[in-house]
Amino acid sequence: MSSLFHSLSQLAEGDIYPFHMPGHKRNMPGHVLEAAYQLDITEIDGFDNLHNPGGMIWQAQKKAADLWEAKESFFLVNGSTAGILAALSAAFPKGSEMILARNCHKSAYHGMLLREIRPHYLYPKLIDEGFLYGSVLPKQVEALYKQYPESRGVFLTSPNYDGVISPVKKISQIVHEHGGILIVDEAHGAHLGLSKEFPESAVTQGADIVIQSLHKTLPSFTQTGLLHLCSNRVPKEKLQRYLGIYQTSSPSYLFMSTMEQCIEVVEREKDITFSRLSQNIDEFLNAVKGLVHLQILNESFARERKMYQFDKSKLIISTYGTNISGKELSDRLLAQYHLQMEMACEHYVLALTSICDRREGFQRLAKALLEIDKELQGGFVKNTEKGLKIFQPKEENIAFSISEAEEAEKEKIPFRQCEHRISGEFLYLYPPGVPFVVPGEYITKEIIEQISFYKKQGLSIQGNEDDTMTYLEVIQ
Amino acid sequence: MSSLFHSLSQLAEGDIYPFHMPGHKRNMPGHVLEAAYQLDITEIDGFDNLHNPGGMIWQAQKKAADLWEAKESFFLVNGSTAGILAALSAAFPKGSEMILARNCHKSAYHGMLLREIRPHYLYPKLIDEGFLYGSVLPKQVEALYKQYPESRGVFLTSPNYDGVISPVKKISQIVHEHGGILIVDEAHGAHLGLSKEFPESAVTQGADIVIQSLHKTLPSFTQTGLLHLCSNRVPKEKLQRYLGIYQTSSPSYLFMSTMEQCIEVVEREKDITFSRLSQNIDEFLNAVKGLVHLQILNESFARERKMYQFDKSKLIISTYGTNISGKELSDRLLAQYHLQMEMACEHYVLALTSICDRREGFQRLAKALLEIDKELQGGFVKNTEKGLKIFQPKEENIAFSISEAEEAEKEKIPFRQCEHRISGEFLYLYPPGVPFVVPGEYITKEIIEQISFYKKQGLSIQGNEDDTMTYLEVIQ
Repeated sequence: MSSLFHSLSQLAEGDIYPFHMPGHKRNMPGHVLEAAYQLDITEIDGFDNLHNPGGMIWQAQKKAADLWEAKESFFLVNGSTAGILAALSAAFPKGSEMILARNCHKSAYHGMLLREIRPHYLYPKLIDEGFLYGSVLPKQVEALYKQYPESRGVFLTSPNYDGVISPVKKISQIVHEHGGILIVDEAHGAHLGLSKEFPESAVTQGADIVIQSLHKTLPSFTQTGLLHLCSNRVPKEKLQRYLGIYQTSSPSYLFMSTMEQCIEVVEREKDITFSRLSQNIDEFLNAVKGLVHLQILNESFARERKMYQFDKSKLIISTYGTNISGKELSDRLLAQYHLQMEMACEHYVLALTSICDRREGFQRLAKALLEIDKELQGGFVKNTEKGLKIFQPKEENIAFSISEAEEAEKEKIPFRQCEHRISGEFLYLYPPGVPFVVPGEYITKEIIEQISFYKKQGLSIQGNEDDTMTYLEVIQ
Repeated sequence: MSSLFHSLSQLAEGDIYPFHMPGHKRNMPGHVLEAAYQLDITEIDGFDNLHNPGGMIWQAQKKAADLWEAKESFFLVNGSTAGILAALSAAFPKGSEMILARNCHKSAYHGMLLREIRPHYLYPKLIDEGFLYGSVLPKQVEALYKQYPESRGVFLTSPNYDGVISPVKKISQIVHEHGGILIVDEAHGAHLGLSKEFPESAVTQGADIVIQSLHKTLPSFTQTGLLHLCSNRVPKEKLQRYLGIYQTSSPSYLFMSTMEQCIEVVEREKDITFSRLSQNIDEFLNAVKGLVHLQILNESFARERKMYQFDKSKLIISTYGTNISGKELSDRLLAQYHLQMEMACEHYVLALTSICDRREGFQRLAKALLEIDKELQGGFVKNTEKGLKIFQPKEENIAFSISEAEEAEKEKIPFRQCEHRISGEFLYLYPPGVPFVVPGEYITKEIIEQISFYKKQGLSIQGNEDDTMTYLEVIQ
């Protein structure tokens, strides 16, 4: 069977006139995106249907399943978000209990809202006085199962936004011993499991469902992803039904054909491209060995900190103990060196690398860091103020489940008056979009201090209606 | 403020190196979609954030609101599907009752599932012995409110897939008199309200929320749309919260920048482009006046059938009473004339037109129809077999709400044995994706006959796991 991309290209070259959607009619001459418009069609004969695949889309999904060694794989055109909502909906009955690592993405919390799930939070250990999340530990999962035996399964993120990987194999054994389902948000790790240079994917480590963003670490358009079904523990029909609920009935053929291409290219060139990336990273790490004040979180650094595994494609550049903040470093890299970072926070900067990076980029970054490092001062007293640490609220702070809070009557009150009140809103920093306040949780003094600290840092707190955090919606 | 598209183009031309997502790093030299990859970024500084807009995205949404005269407009990157789910979730409390026109898109049913809504169905009158849905009538809404005064509002589709428009103004008055909320699925009518050649949009006819697909009838990528908030009856914060739930946290900048462009182009050129489209259609209708057997559903034809209004950009070519089916006509138009239709069913073919159509397309279609028409025979006895009519199940068929059915234990049984059982699945033809069986409804003899008829016609029944309809999932 011809590929989707090839068939769309042939259609673009042919003389078939479209009396169908989309309204641009593949007819945008002179537009810089003309080629993209030409490949953008709707479900016409012969071009398969994402929600009922049996042809080219089915074939492309099969290729993905073969490549990552999943039982079956599904295209996501609404990002990992849709995959996470569908996975939670298909795996867990409405109103059930589950174990969720507290550093999960907001979409997991949204899934719990929609399914009225009552979570038991697992708090990953914080590293270096609380500036990074560590791995989720098997003993933590075991302890929570002991405390909450009714839990129907576990949801965790690995690798997390910073590249920290959890021992999925051991965790999956524990979950399955308890008859549960393990869902792994591998949005940041689509490049795993494809080469010896990078860690294994959760797909082959015993997870039942794995969700990957294709665009985050592989060459695919933003908003594309894959859901891998890896066992028989979650019924495929139910999963497909929910994917059909959370994803548009007009999926983009542009997205689907480029996902197909991404999978083909990775499959064909993975040996060369991942070695090259690994080599680029090693060269970079070697080049910055002379750094005196700035530190790069490499694999040995991660081992010292008892992380299970670390994905070296993420470059964490720590400003800890220096006279510069992560945000200041990032701003300087952009203004002076034209290097745009993925994320900056108080004590570090995150740079993402991929198989599409050029050696020149790594060289520019190394040079810039060495130059900046020379001007820095070190030996600054480690900052121990509250704001430094990632905030992890306790289970006893929970007054209502997220779904109960969602349906409750709410009122808007001045932020300064909200201590002891119950939040009606999510609050998170984006990226990475991990909520530090969830609807139904008490606003404590600690949280108010945390938010004040974030505000002082100029960080934008999201999830709430009022950006300035002057007001907060609380439950009446 | 510079436009998003302009800013992305500038970024593409500059020398800023991306140490951020997406993984293609805007670096796909030689790829036919190179230009598209170059514009595809993530939420970096200065490029705003769909889920918390305050810059270029906010500005583009504001332009949309001004153009359609909405109170506020929101970009949809997960199609009208996401807009419909968010509208239903924000407008109606969990477990509430509402009135829903039975010819709504499956996403409205999915919204009811997620919100545990109990629908009271409004059955639009069928036209021409049941081959087309007519308008939703104000007196039907009034009657249902009388019967079910607890209903919190109304959901309807206008124009529907075939271009039939309902009297939204009168309906909105009734809904508001009852203190309700009116949501209009205008996915097929983004081109309304922009010119005197086409009908008014529901946005200015009293609807509280209107959802439009940009790609269906305007020049925008597939999967893009707008949600217009038109009154204060639905809290904006709640709506935004649900848009943030049902839409990816990694929205495509490619989508957003081309939505912005679509809005700008339409605003700038609407007078010329819509007149030209209208003229093209009129010329086409004039050219096919000589048709003897085939019939085109034009505005006067629609008036005769007591439709409230008809969107003439949809060309319904009826084969009713001839010796050819809609499917056969469509196949012939494609094979012999290279004209791809939007949809074909037993008695008609649907062709969609837009401002991007070329005169040449209309001329090719007119010529083809005239040639085919010459070879047809007319006077065939009107087909009155059951399968002809659109099937509209009755309210008394409902055993459980959709959400109750979703959570119930289910089993798979041979399709032939499913009479008197309660369906666990949606069943629909796609397009248009209007379910004729909804989970929780009894499978009657009539439905079995209907499905057998569809199968005989070679139509693919979707929603269920088993394409061949050998098995059906029913409630235990």
